[in-house]
Amino acid sequence: MAAARTLRIGLIPGDGIGKEVIPAGRQILEALPTSLKLKFEFVDLKAGFETFEQTGTALPDKTVEVLRNECDGALFGAVSSPSTAVKGYSSPIVALRKRLDLYANVRPVKSVMTAMNPIDMVIVRENTEDLYVKEEKTYDGPEGKIAEAIKRISQKASFRIATMAGEIALRRQKIREAGAPSIHKSPLVTITHKSNVLSQTDGLFRSTAREALAATAFSSVGVEEQIVDSMVYKLFRQPETYDVIVAPNLYGDILSDGAAALVGSLGLVPSANVGEGFAIGEPCHGSAPDIQGKNIANPIATLRSVALMLEFLNEEAAAAKIYAAVDANLEEGKLLSPDLGGTATTTQVVEDILRRL
Amino acid sequence: MAAARTLRIGLIPGDGIGKEVIPAGRQILEALPTSLKLKFEFVDLKAGFETFEQTGTALPDKTVEVLRNECDGALFGAVSSPSTAVKGYSSPIVALRKRLDLYANVRPVKSVMTAMNPIDMVIVRENTEDLYVKEEKTYDGPEGKIAEAIKRISQKASFRIATMAGEIALRRQKIREAGAPSIHKSPLVTITHKSNVLSQTDGLFRSTAREALAATAFSSVGVEEQIVDSMVYKLFRQPETYDVIVAPNLYGDILSDGAAALVGSLGLVPSANVGEGFAIGEPCHGSAPDIQGKNIANPIATLRSVALMLEFLNEEAAAAKIYAAVDANLEEGKLLSPDLGGTATTTQVVEDILRRL
Ligand SMILES: CC(C)[C@H](C(=O)O)[C@@H](O)C(=O)O
Ligand SMILES: CC(C)[C@H](C(=O)O)[C@@H](O)C(=O)O
Repeated sequence: MAAARTLRIGLIPGDGIGKEVIPAGRQILEALPTSLKLKFEFVDLKAGFETFEQTGTALPDKTVEVLRNECDGALFGAVSSPSTAVKGYSSPIVALRKRLDLYANVRPVKSVMTAMNPIDMVIVRENTEDLYVKEEKTYDGPEGKIAEAIKRISQKASFRIATMAGEIALRRQKIREAGAPSIHKSPLVTITHKSNVLSQTDGLFRSTAREALAATAFSSVGVEEQIVDSMVYKLFRQPETYDVIVAPNLYGDILSDGAAALVGSLGLVPSANVGEGFAIGEPCHGSAPDIQGKNIANPIATLRSVALMLEFLNEEAAAAKIYAAVDANLEEGKLLSPDLGGTATTTQVVEDILRRL
Repeated sequence: MAAARTLRIGLIPGDGIGKEVIPAGRQILEALPTSLKLKFEFVDLKAGFETFEQTGTALPDKTVEVLRNECDGALFGAVSSPSTAVKGYSSPIVALRKRLDLYANVRPVKSVMTAMNPIDMVIVRENTEDLYVKEEKTYDGPEGKIAEAIKRISQKASFRIATMAGEIALRRQKIREAGAPSIHKSPLVTITHKSNVLSQTDGLFRSTAREALAATAFSSVGVEEQIVDSMVYKLFRQPETYDVIVAPNLYGDILSDGAAALVGSLGLVPSANVGEGFAIGEPCHGSAPDIQGKNIANPIATLRSVALMLEFLNEEAAAAKIYAAVDANLEEGKLLSPDLGGTATTTQVVEDILRRL
């Protein structure tokens, strides 16, 4: 009998409802059936605006080091952004993605019973560059201040993110061929850009993505393009046509919130920040200060992020268990959190899902 | 009896269906009742991808000069973007906006019978800077090519666009107080940005817009903010809450396509590129090569763009006539173009609307 694999998972609740949903993520890992032969160890780690207020940094070096040296994966809750610029504060999740080279932000958006039209897409967002390099400067012009930011697109990052998109498209197709019901018949990657205005930067993203997806390995994958503005339009008019969408960082950020709106709530949408052999699961929602401490946050985005993290750690059977339990809860529709029109508490939703594992 | 005012209007059909809808724009101006005491003269002008192929430039200097020196306003159809980068080609509408300092792109999105939920918003998009300065460079990095673009935000442009947004909010409120039915009770401007990542550039846009809207003249205008990703989410979840949205160039581009999706078709959404004493009406849709030459393009975006242009040329009575005729066509819903589920030709829709003037 094979020995159990032990995975060491960093837990970074962050701010606001992050503190309510990350414990649910831990709970579901602990509740996985022993037949899966998986063990978990947890390390509590700090990051976020509260951490910034306490320690002067939103992302302590210790958090990065422990993740890098001791962990197999992690779960990240959410961070509060200060309502006006605060000197020295900078988003810890953006920094974490770069420092651990988690180059892909993978965001599957799928409807169960919550959307009018069936939707089943994955947004594969480049996670390390574009305007997120945060190289900015401000100077005095003849008529007031002028600020500039660099948007940087590299061939390397564009190539690897498009390759990841192709691989995800193939993996999804394999799961479909194994009999999973799906609205898609064949794999399709849609490249999003704005090369009609940004011919060099987005032009490089576009041509490199095309090149990556022209590899023999992807010969069964359809490839098309959408300009980002028209992509947002089509996302809302014909969301069912999209399978895998690959985009530079900022467009990916915007598109994934748009896609979340289509399935009814940001509280349903998971993400994983993925690098070589490491993944951080992260719900797409924010810290939601308005509902913090009320035990009504939807834990599903986090539970699905746990599953997504497990997929990228090659634990697909465990991931499938979690997805199925979440889908069963949504399909029954009896214990739903308020964002989905229900009255269940976070605790009740988590209990219902654990019961279905 | 006051003499008639003569307005000289440049007509730039551009490419694709631009050639079918701009003539409709001319027709409606010529059909306006004489009681309005307005006369029109037209100048045909060239721009677009076809012009580029014929002359080597997508925006001949002559077009810019005639607009600047001889015209009061203009109508612009659409341009085709080449499907791969073409050396020397650059979008003529982006260039025109900058060369004539048409600093505001105003895009009203309003539902009549075409949307499930009532929507009545205006997107006021900064039209001259941001990533649209198109300052790009490409160089060789250690692991392949790297391209960079500048995103530039100035205090000056941010101030004037936010002031324009405030003025539009006040004007809309005045029309409501004069008895026009509306879903809004009081004026609201929503500032869109991503200052949680771009603290200097979008931070400058945000703080300058706040400052502009803090003027005494706008004391009755509510002001709020949305981060762009969450704005796209809310645009789809609660579109009825938005009155006036002000945004930097690229976010405005994306948001206006998103808003167009909400009212059922890009074929309904007008825009005006507005500077000091000059306005170019421009339908939000593209050149739509797939339906070009079939006489089925929806002319409504153009007809509404004509009205919007007239508003900014202080001909509000004429504008109101056109809006009312278009709304009447949509409310009756008998002669609709295919994008709205109808079977009417462009010609039939135009005739129906002219009849209602
Ligand atoms: C909080 C913010 C910096 C972040 C981003 O823009 O990446 C968030 O919107 C996300 O999508 O994870
Ligand atoms: C054609 C393109 C350059 C243009 C833009 O991005 O401004 C278009 O999308 C628009 O919105 O008018």
